[in-house]
Amino acid sequence: MTTLKEVRQRAEADAKTYGYYLNPDPDFLKDLLEGLKRNEERYGYPSCPCRVASGVFEYDRDILCPCDYRDPDVKEHGYCYCALYVRKDVHTGETPTVPIPERRPPMKMARAQGATAATDEKPEEKEVAKKSTKIEKKLWYCKQCGYVCYREDPPYICPICKAKREMFAEMEIKARKKGTNGRR
Amino acid sequence: MTTLKEVRQRAEADAKTYGYYLNPDPDFLKDLLEGLKRNEERYGYPSCPCRVASGVFEYDRDILCPCDYRDPDVKEHGYCYCALYVRKDVHTGETPTVPIPERRPPMKMARAQGATAATDEKPEEKEVAKKSTKIEKKLWYCKQCGYVCYREDPPYICPICKAKREMFAEMEIKARKKGTNGRR
Amino acid sequence: MTTLKEVRQRAEADAKTYGYYLNPDPDFLKDLLEGLKRNEERYGYPSCPCRVASGVFEYDRDILCPCDYRDPDVKEHGYCYCALYVRKDVHTGETPTVPIPERRPPMKMARAQGATAATDEKPEEKEVAKKSTKIEKKLWYCKQCGYVCYREDPPYICPICKAKREMFAEMEIKARKKGTNGRR
Repeated sequence: MTTLKEVRQRAEADAKTYGYYLNPDPDFLKDLLEGLKRNEERYGYPSCPCRVASGVFEYDRDILCPCDYRDPDVKEHGYCYCALYVRKDVHTGETPTVPIPERRPPMKMARAQGATAATDEKPEEKEVAKKSTKIEKKLWYCKQCGYVCYREDPPYICPICKAKREMFAEMEIKARKKGTNGRR
Repeated sequence: MTTLKEVRQRAEADAKTYGYYLNPDPDFLKDLLEGLKRNEERYGYPSCPCRVASGVFEYDRDILCPCDYRDPDVKEHGYCYCALYVRKDVHTGETPTVPIPERRPPMKMARAQGATAATDEKPEEKEVAKKSTKIEKKLWYCKQCGYVCYREDPPYICPICKAKREMFAEMEIKARKKGTNGRR
Repeated sequence: MTTLKEVRQRAEADAKTYGYYLNPDPDFLKDLLEGLKRNEERYGYPSCPCRVASGVFEYDRDILCPCDYRDPDVKEHGYCYCALYVRKDVHTGETPTVPIPERRPPMKMARAQGATAATDEKPEEKEVAKKSTKIEKKLWYCKQCGYVCYREDPPYICPICKAKREMFAEMEIKARKKGTNGRR
């Protein structure tokens, strides 16, 4: 079983890797870390403590902490949706935290919540959510640094060179017969 | 449009990820960041503010900031070609910045500048530059940590384990039929 | 030839990327860095200064510094097997360093040491070690963030999102003919 200390250490290590900080309010931080621990016990993975998970891994993947939306949110607002990960100016109290808009696409929310969250204004979302039984992954690469990842969509920010999402393109794998060297 | 603040934040985030610092001279730093912003507006990508870009993405890819040469230059000299990214001892002023040699291979410069920069001593470079209409990318992996990237050449330093370029090898993709598990 | 300064700078850069620190005892640290330098000269790669290498790259790959075991050891104990890389609380002296158990699997040790280290209690390990003339690499991806790597086994911790090893799965490459776009 994952202990609270382990949850905290993962978050700390992760924050350091990206030059972020954890929320400076110790009680608030503890609540978030306990939420992560609870989700890990409940679902088997640490989904976002501020969002409702579906319990279906593939539908919740984008909200596993650190979620897909953390980096663009920290970049734009200074902190993630939960305010678990914050920028230095937020950590020092220079920039206050106010609620920020949810960046998660409604389509993904609808899909995750069994289409129940699809807005009535966009009925097509419900259809999409119902049909997506299996999520197709693709190989993406960053056109700037070459980072390769295998996901449904490319990340918002390249974790290696910080290029923005538009810099990602789908890879085209050219299979080679084993033992030959193709065009070389 | 990209704001100067966004350019600065990307550079700051990127510096933190790699344990670097930005140039400690605020006016000099501002000039560099404005150069990046100008290049992003002009070309659609933030090419190096200290180098002349061709405007052809594929030919400028290696000088998109952070350029391919930043990591080996910071490793060897303590700062990149522009001195935008610097090591701690440079940030504190302990190590001064003096002009450093251009690490970009003449072949890439020549290719980018329509072969005009190819040195007269090496006429074969001009030929190479003229012929390279499409740049071939390969899948590389780091033999130490397994990091995979898709680029023309491998990086100088592995962004994951910091192994040097010699540790990269070309991947040989063994295609498997969907639904089968090959030799397993 | 690699200088001691270069060995130190690689270790420092690597520590910063992951939010780690180097051992705070300058003499002990110097011994470790000299061990890394010696191994690089002897074997051509910087294998762990606290472990016996076989001299066969493929068998020593997991103990090239930073070794495969560093991240889980820092996570669990606060420092790696050598105590070269340490967590902040170890760096400040708050947490003392005591010998920690070897995490390297006996099978890999046996394989590396020409099966001489296989324990008599587990004779099957010797057989495995003798048979493994070529190590098979696979493409792995992190189910959380999509990070792709090419290794014998997945890493203990995802270097991008810090997910644990269980979050890695083997990739199934679906080859596409060049110029076509498959199912799209």
